[in-house]
Amino acid sequence: MQIPVVRNILEANVVIAKELNKIFLQRKILALNLMSSPGAGKTTLLERTLADLKNEFKMAVIEGDVQTNNDARRVAATGAQALQINTDGGCHLDSSMVLEAVNKMNLEGVDILFIENVGNLVCPAEFSVGEDYKVTILSVAEGDDKPEKYPLIFAESRVMLLNKVDLLPYVDFNLERASNFARSLNKEIEIFPVSAKTGEGLDSWYDWLRQEVAKKKNL
Amino acid sequence: MQIPVVRNILEANVVIAKELNKIFLQRKILALNLMSSPGAGKTTLLERTLADLKNEFKMAVIEGDVQTNNDARRVAATGAQALQINTDGGCHLDSSMVLEAVNKMNLEGVDILFIENVGNLVCPAEFSVGEDYKVTILSVAEGDDKPEKYPLIFAESRVMLLNKVDLLPYVDFNLERASNFARSLNKEIEIFPVSAKTGEGLDSWYDWLRQEVAKKKNL
Repeated sequence: MQIPVVRNILEANVVIAKELNKIFLQRKILALNLMSSPGAGKTTLLERTLADLKNEFKMAVIEGDVQTNNDARRVAATGAQALQINTDGGCHLDSSMVLEAVNKMNLEGVDILFIENVGNLVCPAEFSVGEDYKVTILSVAEGDDKPEKYPLIFAESRVMLLNKVDLLPYVDFNLERASNFARSLNKEIEIFPVSAKTGEGLDSWYDWLRQEVAKKKNL
Repeated sequence: MQIPVVRNILEANVVIAKELNKIFLQRKILALNLMSSPGAGKTTLLERTLADLKNEFKMAVIEGDVQTNNDARRVAATGAQALQINTDGGCHLDSSMVLEAVNKMNLEGVDILFIENVGNLVCPAEFSVGEDYKVTILSVAEGDDKPEKYPLIFAESRVMLLNKVDLLPYVDFNLERASNFARSLNKEIEIFPVSAKTGEGLDSWYDWLRQEVAKKKNL
C-alpha cells in the first residue's frame, strides 16, 4: 500500500524539479543542493563562501530547516539574499517548497543559488530540487565509514566536501578510506578536504565554483 | 492528500509499538531507543557500554542502518547478541521492523535491549519502537544549536548524551547553551557529558542504566 503513494510523491517532485531546472537554465544560474548530517558545517561553509566570493559573484541562498530561521539570518549577515523554508518536521526540502521560495526571490543577475537542505544524510538525496549538482558535506568528526553506510547521497553528489580537517589530529578519520568508498559509488565525484573554520582547502572549492559558473554562462 | 496517509502509517506504528512495550514489560527488559545524527558516536558508545557492563547485565542490541551490517558486527564483537535491520533507504526504524527482529532474538534473561536507530535527527523521533525511553546522542562537534534546530527529538528523549567531550578544546560548543535549550524543551531530560572514546563521564550514564534496570525489575 505504501509503494504507490511514495511513487506519486516522487513523480510529482520530479515534474516540479524539471520546471525549476528550466528556470535556472534560462537565467544561467548555477544551482547547488547542499546536503549533510546536522552539524557537518553547511552554514559555516556557506557564510565563508559568500564572504570570500562576494566581489566575484552575485549569490543567493535558500535555507531549509525543520525549525528556526537562524541559518537564514546567519547567511543574510554576509549581505547575500537569503530566504528561509521551515519544513515543520519534514526531513528534506522538495521541489514545490523550492519553487515557492524561488518565486518570492529576486533572481535578477544571480550567478549562484545555494539551496541548503535539511540536515540529514538520508531523505534529501531522494528529492531533486531542480539543482545542477548535489554537493554533500561530510565532517571528519562523523567518521570515514559514512559513504559506505549512507551510499545514496554520495552516489548522487558531484562534490564531497570533507569538512573540519582542522580536527583530523583529534579524530579517527582516514581520508583515503572515505574518498575511495565515495569514488567506488560515483566515479565523477570531486573531493575537496576543507576547513570552513580555518579556510584550509577552500581555494579548490572556489575554483570548482568558478569553473561551473563559467560553464553555465556558456550553455 | 498526504495527511491521511501519514496518519495511517503513524497509527499502525503505535499499535505495534504498544505490543512491543508489553513484551518488554512482561520480560522486564529495559528497552532504549538510541538516536542521533550520523557519526555522533552511537555505536562506539554501545561498544563501550556493552564491554564495561557485561559482568553486570545481559544485554542485546538491534542495529538499524540504511545499508551494511558493519554496526551489528562491531557490537557482536563485544559478545552481546546483535541483530541487524537494513531499512534499504528508509530514514528510521519502525515498530514492525523491531517486532520482526525481536521475534528472531533470544530475549531470555536479557536486562537491557538497545535499539540503535538509523543516524538521523528528524524521522526516528516520530516513530516509537516500543521503547521505555528514547536516548539521544549529540556530538559536541555538531554544534550547540542542535536542540533548537531539531527540537522534537530532544523533547521526546529522556536522556541526552553529549558525546566527544574530548573534542571540546577544538570546537565551538557551549555545554550550557545546549543543555539549557534541551531543558526548555523537556524538563525531565537527563544530560550526561561523555566521551565514548576516552571513557570520561560514562559512570553517570552507567549509574542511570543501573537505576532504570532496577526500576523495571520492580514493576
